Amino acid sequence: MRNNCGTSRIVGCQFSLHPMSDNFVDIILSTLSEVDTSKVWKETDDVSTCIRGKMIHVFDVAKAIFLHAANTGEHVAMNGTFSIGCPGDTEADAYMDETDTPLNEEKAKSILQIAGCKFSLYPMGHEDYMDKIYEQINLSKHRNVTVTSTHYATRLDGDVHDIFNALHESFKLVQEKVSHVTMTFSLSANSPTTK
Amino acid sequence: MRNNCGTSRIVGCQFSLHPMSDNFVDIILSTLSEVDTSKVWKETDDVSTCIRGKMIHVFDVAKAIFLHAANTGEHVAMNGTFSIGCPGDTEADAYMDETDTPLNEEKAKSILQIAGCKFSLYPMGHEDYMDKIYEQINLSKHRNVTVTSTHYATRLDGDVHDIFNALHESFKLVQEKVSHVTMTFSLSANSPTTK
Repeated sequence: MRNNCGTSRIVGCQFSLHPMSDNFVDIILSTLSEVDTSKVWKETDDVSTCIRGKMIHVFDVAKAIFLHAANTGEHVAMNGTFSIGCPGDTEADAYMDETDTPLNEEKAKSILQIAGCKFSLYPMGHEDYMDKIYEQINLSKHRNVTVTSTHYATRLDGDVHDIFNALHESFKLVQEKVSHVTMTFSLSANSPTTK
Repeated sequence: MRNNCGTSRIVGCQFSLHPMSDNFVDIILSTLSEVDTSKVWKETDDVSTCIRGKMIHVFDVAKAIFLHAANTGEHVAMNGTFSIGCPGDTEADAYMDETDTPLNEEKAKSILQIAGCKFSLYPMGHEDYMDKIYEQINLSKHRNVTVTSTHYATRLDGDVHDIFNALHESFKLVQEKVSHVTMTFSLSANSPTTK
């Protein structure tokens, strides 16, 4: 059942999408109808959705889902964890033979949406994991997002595309050095509580 | 700014509460009015809430918030990360001098609420971290909750009190062996999508 650590570079994201609205079911269903998930494996239950596949497609689908849901104008939150290289992972349930062209970028790029995001990187199995985190947090400061420190997380504010670029690149750089990496994120858009 | 690893046993929980309802603001405010948070440090912004203090109070407050929100009958989700021993943590913003009596257990224990929960334990900085995870996952099976495996997480189904007992005990046992531990969780109650 277990792979050798790091041989499989399947990326997964376990997330939940929460529209704070009586119409949450319609918003979730209409969002899913807008997003092309054919290049990732996907499973949804009452707690969360899991998508798995190549890194580029997992980030593409996650971003598109949040953007299309937030584009309804409702207060929408999305929470989840990206993961790669878990020694307990299997080869199953991944679509690793897809081409690298993301399917949702074309439609998503026209959606402009401001959001707040808190994220935390967890490089696993290394004693010097904090150094690897700090390297990436410094790197985030060069992007087109406002970066602030909070307890247990780094906060990013800006356009959702820029936020996802920062998340994607931080995750990508750390997993090049550390086999098993997880990254938690909490996104919020259209909150009546402005920062 | 940084502590020596493990000297401070401040527990924190960064979480967000999501009632899937037009009345989300009222539900959140009424929930907070029902929960006594005076034994934890607390800060809320538009993305999430952070509470910090002794382990017993952080778990007591987190459970009470979820229970009181779910008790409205609305579909409610709560996502977050418990953390202890982060080498980047500070001594600030913690109420470590409180007595050990939890303030919300008396009122919370009368609330019976079924929920689903996915959680993941991340013992940091150790090469044998998977063994420490597996030890706890085995231990969970002895509790009064249904335990199933999913990608990247363990699912617990049952009464919210039993779920929190399992979370609390797993976290407590792992942090006795590993200085820096984080634990992510996603809770869902009253979902129209039954499992």
